[in-house]
Amino acid sequence: MCAQAFIEKGDEVILPNPSFLSYEACINMAEGQIVPVNCKMENEFKLKASDVEEKITKNTKAIILNSPSNPTGAVMEKEDIKAIADLSMDKNFLIISDEIYEKIIYNKKHYSPAKWSENVVTLNGFSKTYAMTGLRIGYLTTTEDLCEELLKIHQYNIACATTTSQRGALEALSGPQDEVNKMVAEFKRRRDLIVSRLNEMGYETVNAEGAFYVFPKIEDENFVQKAAKAGVITVPGAAFGSNGNGHVRMSYANSYENIEKAMDILEEKIVNG
Amino acid sequence: MCAQAFIEKGDEVILPNPSFLSYEACINMAEGQIVPVNCKMENEFKLKASDVEEKITKNTKAIILNSPSNPTGAVMEKEDIKAIADLSMDKNFLIISDEIYEKIIYNKKHYSPAKWSENVVTLNGFSKTYAMTGLRIGYLTTTEDLCEELLKIHQYNIACATTTSQRGALEALSGPQDEVNKMVAEFKRRRDLIVSRLNEMGYETVNAEGAFYVFPKIEDENFVQKAAKAGVITVPGAAFGSNGNGHVRMSYANSYENIEKAMDILEEKIVNG
Repeated sequence: MCAQAFIEKGDEVILPNPSFLSYEACINMAEGQIVPVNCKMENEFKLKASDVEEKITKNTKAIILNSPSNPTGAVMEKEDIKAIADLSMDKNFLIISDEIYEKIIYNKKHYSPAKWSENVVTLNGFSKTYAMTGLRIGYLTTTEDLCEELLKIHQYNIACATTTSQRGALEALSGPQDEVNKMVAEFKRRRDLIVSRLNEMGYETVNAEGAFYVFPKIEDENFVQKAAKAGVITVPGAAFGSNGNGHVRMSYANSYENIEKAMDILEEKIVNG
Repeated sequence: MCAQAFIEKGDEVILPNPSFLSYEACINMAEGQIVPVNCKMENEFKLKASDVEEKITKNTKAIILNSPSNPTGAVMEKEDIKAIADLSMDKNFLIISDEIYEKIIYNKKHYSPAKWSENVVTLNGFSKTYAMTGLRIGYLTTTEDLCEELLKIHQYNIACATTTSQRGALEALSGPQDEVNKMVAEFKRRRDLIVSRLNEMGYETVNAEGAFYVFPKIEDENFVQKAAKAGVITVPGAAFGSNGNGHVRMSYANSYENIEKAMDILEEKIVNG
């Protein structure tokens, strides 16, 4: 919706590399020009404001942020988010901030660029925090002016969200939040397991601070196929941009026991196979 | 989805006038060129194949059909649907056939252009036949090739339909259909009521053969506002295209008793007011 509402042919959109694969497709559908900005493993895949600043031109229309990140689990630093927010005001571009993993964060605090800039559309939803994936319900917040533009697209793409899902979302928001906290603690336990197991196997892995993905460095080009054959489904890092080459995305949105089993399989069939 | 998948800038799209107002917006969003084709009251608002044929050029990319029609309730004749289907094969354009009111039809039979042409995307849904409006679930059928193009858009606009709504749709399709037949009989009773009351008031009204709308000729420019003030909500015909000027759309998806009451109000407050 953001791409259709705000991106015209040739507009430059700064896109973290790697990042969630739908962003690129949406920009392409709107005929925008993608300007990749590197998220480096040496920075634990965290996007740095100084790298963003270098990419800004007079044609910059928007940047997409996603912290915590799919596929890397990286959580951006407060000062980088604030600096990009300030840049969006100075240079007059839009921040499309996908904060769907906002609550799934471990020893850090989540910051939204909307705290410091009016040029922000904040995206969120119920699929991650409340595991309501199948209910297909999300929301956005932005200024009244930007919202009016988005409604023009919304009216014809969606018209309105499913009533039953809206009811579910209301219950989720207004009910007790203990389950969210319990789930985040459980995700942390799984993160600790998968990161230590991967590092033990010799796959260098950043200790991702949020979301439920890790992005180990795995240079074996046949890894994903071999793992799938052995019963462990992973996603090739290249799907998320060129900087994903030589990495594999693993989701730990699965039981602790299944993650243990998956790591055992990788160790037996691939590392020692 | 069809507009985004198939219409490129400048492509001509033949659009019945009047027709459902979202079609025009969707074509505009895809930067297509709208080529209106008249649905005349003298033909009971039925789209004629001969009128369509005149509008076809080498740039014709698609036509949108909607029988039974919102806003007129018109049901196209079998021979016109077949002729347009044949044209779509001869002249190689796409028919986007919105058949959402397929089952709400009185003394006629519904025909889909897909019976005679492969260049058809048939749109349907559960909002009308099963009154599942709030569940936001529909479907389309087309060839494998066209479907593959549509899936590219679907993946990023929708991803998938709400699970709970899919379950509801399955129940609706596989359960007994008696309620549908009962509802269509009830709609016919309401149609008979509203058409005869409007004609009695001197508002010339076609005896619409499907959907749940009538489109009386009402030349009083202040009718819609006056009716709203008196408690009866209608839609100005001009919202559906220039041929809607001098008409008003009335929905009879309301109880028999409320329709009687609405007609009494119009008679007292506007006709005799």
